[in-house]
Amino acid sequence: MDEKLIEYIRELIPEDQRVLTDQADLYSYSFDASFGMHVPELVVQPKHTDEVAAIMKLANQYDIPIYPRGQGTSLSGGPLPVKGGVVLDLSKWDSKLEIDAEDMVAVVSPGVLTADINEAAMERGLMYPPDPSSSHVATIGGNLAENSGGPRGLKYGVTKDYVIGLEVVTPEGEVIQTGGRTIKNVTGYDLTKLIVGSEGTLGIITEAILHLSPKPPATETLMALFDDIVDSGRAISQVLSGGILPSKMEMMDQASIQAVENYQPLGLPTDVEALLFIELDGHPAAIEQEITEIKQICLQAGAREVKVAQTNDEARELWKARKLVSPAIVRVKPTKISEDATVPRSKILDLFQTLKEIKEKHQVDLVVFGHAGDGNLHPNIIADKRDEEEMKRVEAAVEEIFEAAIKLGGTLSGEHGIGTMKSPFLEMELGEVGVDMMKRIKNSWDPNHILNPGKIFPDPGQRLVLTDES
Amino acid sequence: MDEKLIEYIRELIPEDQRVLTDQADLYSYSFDASFGMHVPELVVQPKHTDEVAAIMKLANQYDIPIYPRGQGTSLSGGPLPVKGGVVLDLSKWDSKLEIDAEDMVAVVSPGVLTADINEAAMERGLMYPPDPSSSHVATIGGNLAENSGGPRGLKYGVTKDYVIGLEVVTPEGEVIQTGGRTIKNVTGYDLTKLIVGSEGTLGIITEAILHLSPKPPATETLMALFDDIVDSGRAISQVLSGGILPSKMEMMDQASIQAVENYQPLGLPTDVEALLFIELDGHPAAIEQEITEIKQICLQAGAREVKVAQTNDEARELWKARKLVSPAIVRVKPTKISEDATVPRSKILDLFQTLKEIKEKHQVDLVVFGHAGDGNLHPNIIADKRDEEEMKRVEAAVEEIFEAAIKLGGTLSGEHGIGTMKSPFLEMELGEVGVDMMKRIKNSWDPNHILNPGKIFPDPGQRLVLTDES
Repeated sequence: MDEKLIEYIRELIPEDQRVLTDQADLYSYSFDASFGMHVPELVVQPKHTDEVAAIMKLANQYDIPIYPRGQGTSLSGGPLPVKGGVVLDLSKWDSKLEIDAEDMVAVVSPGVLTADINEAAMERGLMYPPDPSSSHVATIGGNLAENSGGPRGLKYGVTKDYVIGLEVVTPEGEVIQTGGRTIKNVTGYDLTKLIVGSEGTLGIITEAILHLSPKPPATETLMALFDDIVDSGRAISQVLSGGILPSKMEMMDQASIQAVENYQPLGLPTDVEALLFIELDGHPAAIEQEITEIKQICLQAGAREVKVAQTNDEARELWKARKLVSPAIVRVKPTKISEDATVPRSKILDLFQTLKEIKEKHQVDLVVFGHAGDGNLHPNIIADKRDEEEMKRVEAAVEEIFEAAIKLGGTLSGEHGIGTMKSPFLEMELGEVGVDMMKRIKNSWDPNHILNPGKIFPDPGQRLVLTDES
Repeated sequence: MDEKLIEYIRELIPEDQRVLTDQADLYSYSFDASFGMHVPELVVQPKHTDEVAAIMKLANQYDIPIYPRGQGTSLSGGPLPVKGGVVLDLSKWDSKLEIDAEDMVAVVSPGVLTADINEAAMERGLMYPPDPSSSHVATIGGNLAENSGGPRGLKYGVTKDYVIGLEVVTPEGEVIQTGGRTIKNVTGYDLTKLIVGSEGTLGIITEAILHLSPKPPATETLMALFDDIVDSGRAISQVLSGGILPSKMEMMDQASIQAVENYQPLGLPTDVEALLFIELDGHPAAIEQEITEIKQICLQAGAREVKVAQTNDEARELWKARKLVSPAIVRVKPTKISEDATVPRSKILDLFQTLKEIKEKHQVDLVVFGHAGDGNLHPNIIADKRDEEEMKRVEAAVEEIFEAAIKLGGTLSGEHGIGTMKSPFLEMELGEVGVDMMKRIKNSWDPNHILNPGKIFPDPGQRLVLTDES
């Protein structure tokens, strides 16, 4: 990289420790929670909008790619510097976390942890609903870039549903404000919702205004065990079509239950095919009645057993199994390929069936859990990336998972983003013209292709490769 | 217009009566519910996606503007053919209205009436929440183009929050599918939410997939009368910050109450400064308790009287006053300029104060009502467009309303769209770069400026003119 550019950046950023050039430092920015290693040429930790704007202007001048990054918990390669260049680490920029209870909004800097926003809101009787599993580690900036979901998405929607305003540095280094502090806004195109979920390819979010909800007065949790996975699907469907909208409806398949029991025995029966966790929130009188109805629906659908938590501690105990899935499965094998194929609600059972076939056909360790209530499952393949033959089978299985989701009327990604690994499949879902319309936006906003290149849109001829991490 | 083009269009559309050239027919497409008259050169009533695609291709070839139109209830000039050319009347295309209860979606053609979607959903125990006042007359296509709101927006959000998939004809006549039938989808840029609310400038929506909610088991309605408008604002704020989220929170000011009582006496006291209507929906046990809490909050905030409807008929009776506002005020004077300036919730009282000052300063008939719970008020000015001197005062007042909304951290438009009248003020809210980023999208999608020109983006030097309708 041009020494002059580094010099200019050093002039912009007064403190030395916010510009990292040391190889050891650079290496720690070479990966995220997905796959592949790419060492950046430089890492900068901006803490002001004008720093970001100036860096983007320089990057255009010197034709150097820029990759915004939060805490690197991305499951799709969002922050990886795949074309070389500069990583902007925004995780240190956590100076602002303001709750305005009257406007029911939070105003936040990009480096604030997502869970901290919800906690601050809770203190004022409010709630920030999006709850990705990584919320205690991940930054809101990353959540915004990827439009993160989470279990509560079933009732409350995803990150995008709560963003009403942004401050954004454009790919060419201009600063714009989108939306504002009002719940309703139809002035011009909705740049807010275009930028949220654009995986850092259309702008760098330097501040966000988030809409908050009233904190629900009570929650109740129920766990149901099913001998037959088909019965669990029927129970989900009957609950939802019966007019009850739980805050969460999570499932674990037999392989997930077994992995958890091997990792930390919780006393779950490992001979059941599926386990459902259902959480209700709202008015205490309403949810008490609803939880009884759900219990009956589950039993009638064929549940072996239904447990309703009587206390908050009991509820936490029930949720423990779901929280342990991810750590448990990486104990089986070191490499985890975490997908988020999503299908229409009515196709969940078909997806289960297809996943079972794929697992057998390619002899891969496939574990399925996730947000069953909204059709957003997490098929995880666990493998060992040093085993080239196994990884070839994993490649084939992953490709078939994507094909199955689309064939069932679903999508490549429900909440993780396209990033690097799913981009070869983009056209399969969107068609040539659909991809072209997206590229037109990208090209008109970032004519020099400076911002997060190599994400969403595949390079010509690019295909999924898990065997060579270069 | 080129005779050849008309000939080609006649070849595309088999039935004669779907291509209108008669002057009397064309005149009936020259206005909407906003301001101004513009006679189109041709009206076509397409009923198939390939007809729309072919027309768009021809329009690009012949450089003829195309204006999509529903039932013409737009309050911002969305369907007006301001640059001449062809109006596409999509209101006859109502062939599809499918409810899939298991996927909890409705799939609809653009000409289906919005209220019919909700009614069909209700029959299956579901609900389509967006409820603009015009929902029994307006088409879903128009609602999608303008991202319509409505009273239920407070709890349920607006049209955009329910759209998960679209079939769209691009400005150059290609057909794309955006999103799909899944609740979650982060595959590529969110074209769905970009196109919804783009006022027919980025594409023509030929089919939509709408997400439905469970139908709430019960509703309750309350009306509160306030001697002091400031007290009503405090009551709204206390209800929301107390953890209750009503489905509707509507207000009427004294002028609206007086207009209604003059039009059709309902026995409302005309000496109160404000009237609040609050509707709750949800579980019966929950809302019964909540309505008691709200009653107490209103009385403590200084309400003169609070009435809780005991039956559905009583609730309908209470809502009657709110529904009569629009017909009542046009009886006072024939011309209605309906605005939808929206401010952060905490600034509602400031907006009331400023509106009062503007009314006095410019001596205009200003009536205020609307969705107070979400900061989206409807200041309506009633006037007589034949009175040029009065219209000059209206122009000045409207301009000051926009300025006030933006100064209070709000927006030009909460739910009606920018269209023709508000476009001169766009840059005041978005800044030069903000407008430029929107124009880049428009130019990259519609390089020949064929689709709905003259909307959202002002012509150079354009300003608000209400005195010359030419």
